[in-house]
Amino acid sequence: MLAVHLQTGRVEVRRAPLPKLLPGFARIRMLAAGICSTDLELRRGYYRFCGTPGHEFAGEVSECEDRRWIGRRVAGEINLACGHCDWCKRKLGRHCPHRTVLGIVKHPGAFAEFLTLPIANLHPIPDSIPTEHAVFIEPVAAACEIIDQVEVRGREAAVLGDGKLGLLIAQVLKAHGARVHLFGRHREKLQIADRAGISCERAGKKLPERAFPIVVDATGSAGGLRSAIAMCIPRGTVIMKSTVHGLVPIDTAPAIVNEITLIGSRCGRFEPAIRLLKSGKVRVAEMIAKTFLLDRAGKAFERAETKGVLKVLLQAP
Amino acid sequence: MLAVHLQTGRVEVRRAPLPKLLPGFARIRMLAAGICSTDLELRRGYYRFCGTPGHEFAGEVSECEDRRWIGRRVAGEINLACGHCDWCKRKLGRHCPHRTVLGIVKHPGAFAEFLTLPIANLHPIPDSIPTEHAVFIEPVAAACEIIDQVEVRGREAAVLGDGKLGLLIAQVLKAHGARVHLFGRHREKLQIADRAGISCERAGKKLPERAFPIVVDATGSAGGLRSAIAMCIPRGTVIMKSTVHGLVPIDTAPAIVNEITLIGSRCGRFEPAIRLLKSGKVRVAEMIAKTFLLDRAGKAFERAETKGVLKVLLQAP
Repeated sequence: MLAVHLQTGRVEVRRAPLPKLLPGFARIRMLAAGICSTDLELRRGYYRFCGTPGHEFAGEVSECEDRRWIGRRVAGEINLACGHCDWCKRKLGRHCPHRTVLGIVKHPGAFAEFLTLPIANLHPIPDSIPTEHAVFIEPVAAACEIIDQVEVRGREAAVLGDGKLGLLIAQVLKAHGARVHLFGRHREKLQIADRAGISCERAGKKLPERAFPIVVDATGSAGGLRSAIAMCIPRGTVIMKSTVHGLVPIDTAPAIVNEITLIGSRCGRFEPAIRLLKSGKVRVAEMIAKTFLLDRAGKAFERAETKGVLKVLLQAP
Repeated sequence: MLAVHLQTGRVEVRRAPLPKLLPGFARIRMLAAGICSTDLELRRGYYRFCGTPGHEFAGEVSECEDRRWIGRRVAGEINLACGHCDWCKRKLGRHCPHRTVLGIVKHPGAFAEFLTLPIANLHPIPDSIPTEHAVFIEPVAAACEIIDQVEVRGREAAVLGDGKLGLLIAQVLKAHGARVHLFGRHREKLQIADRAGISCERAGKKLPERAFPIVVDATGSAGGLRSAIAMCIPRGTVIMKSTVHGLVPIDTAPAIVNEITLIGSRCGRFEPAIRLLKSGKVRVAEMIAKTFLLDRAGKAFERAETKGVLKVLLQAP
């Protein structure tokens, strides 16, 4: 099969053997996969990654011991947990210390014709969600994690960053009853949010200070967290959603003086994400910048790296 | 009267007029006051402070419209709130945006023969608490703030830093039922905690990772927060208790991947602090390094700056 091979700075498409099917696993034919900012960070050397990346995908089960899955369109949770430790017993396999992570930590990812995942990680994709949109289930789930961490209903929430994740988070928070203000630098991206009914503000040099009880940093930049802390009211909550490679300088004094709570937020449950995409409350069609065939993954990464470009998809040939 | 005058780098004792007594305020004769790390930071230029510092004190009311206070020994809350805004109405005057702060922001502090505070800020000191120990009510209250922010009873908690605040925090958490592990670098300071029944560990280069559900950073150093994040288990809580002047570099990736909650923690309520000192559950006698008369404040600051020295007190002449 064809598979992307990524090593710091280099993206190649290679011929590779089919991934082995272990007991309890399904083999999945990739239908479409999305390039995420994490993939771009992997290329820059984050986690010293070497292998096949890709953790946002929609696929079709081609082989599986439980034959009811065969032929079904699926999305898949990306953390492969041990199933036995205390974390797993508390249904927090996403934090299992023994886990591997699809396309990120020691498990080959979805930028290939086939991938494997434990059957327990699979979620059927409802017929009404097109395959290209189903690729967004994973990042929408990551946005939904915020809902499990902080009560947003009826509250003012600022989202910093109008990139892929910021646009999803703004929609997810709005769908859960928050009054969302999206701050971004890109007119076209803010227009997408505006059409989804979100109040948008062009982020200039001066952002409002001490203004919001909830602030989400989805800037993906080292300065984002400092801005988020400054925008948060005393005793408010800042959600840290962008992983930035390396050290981030923050001014802890205002966070301490104002007793702000900073919450790290990562992967989320797939169920609410699938519901939101099915209901149309989160719209992703306008976020797809371009689709490339898998064998042009190098070009696809280049496009995804281009400033201002939203989601780039890969499709199986 | 005599009053300390502090401006970046310089500590002088000057003659100054008695502070004016506004309606609703009490004039207080300082009996003893403590030099806190914040005072040392003020000297280094934090807040561009210029004036009389000092916010940890025990005093005696010398003048007050409500005559019942006159002659009473008091401690005083340091935030002077407006009393009218939404924060004040929610009894969170500590976060009032219009507040001044005793010895820190636009209200002359306790390193003087007399100071003033609103009557509402005063707390009588129980007879059984010696004046020198009552100086610790304010920092013990700051330690108690953690108890209002996170449930500690029955849980393992690591405290990083065996300085003044770390020793108080360790005792306060223990008094509230946490299983406390204090990590520090100073044998004599750890011995103080050890005698208070706290499990102490000499912090070498290698600290335990992913080990504690609650970690308090009381190191006062720029590296403390990174260590605290590394020591915290996934979904655990890091309490940020040390304000460090300037930017602190942190590695946000582990905080996000492990979904850690970081909580800024500042001033606390005085009532539980007074109870803890009265009951003997928090012991401070061994933490007093030396007492200087007010007119030797320069020497007192020098001593307080000396590596390894705990609490230095000032006394009225």
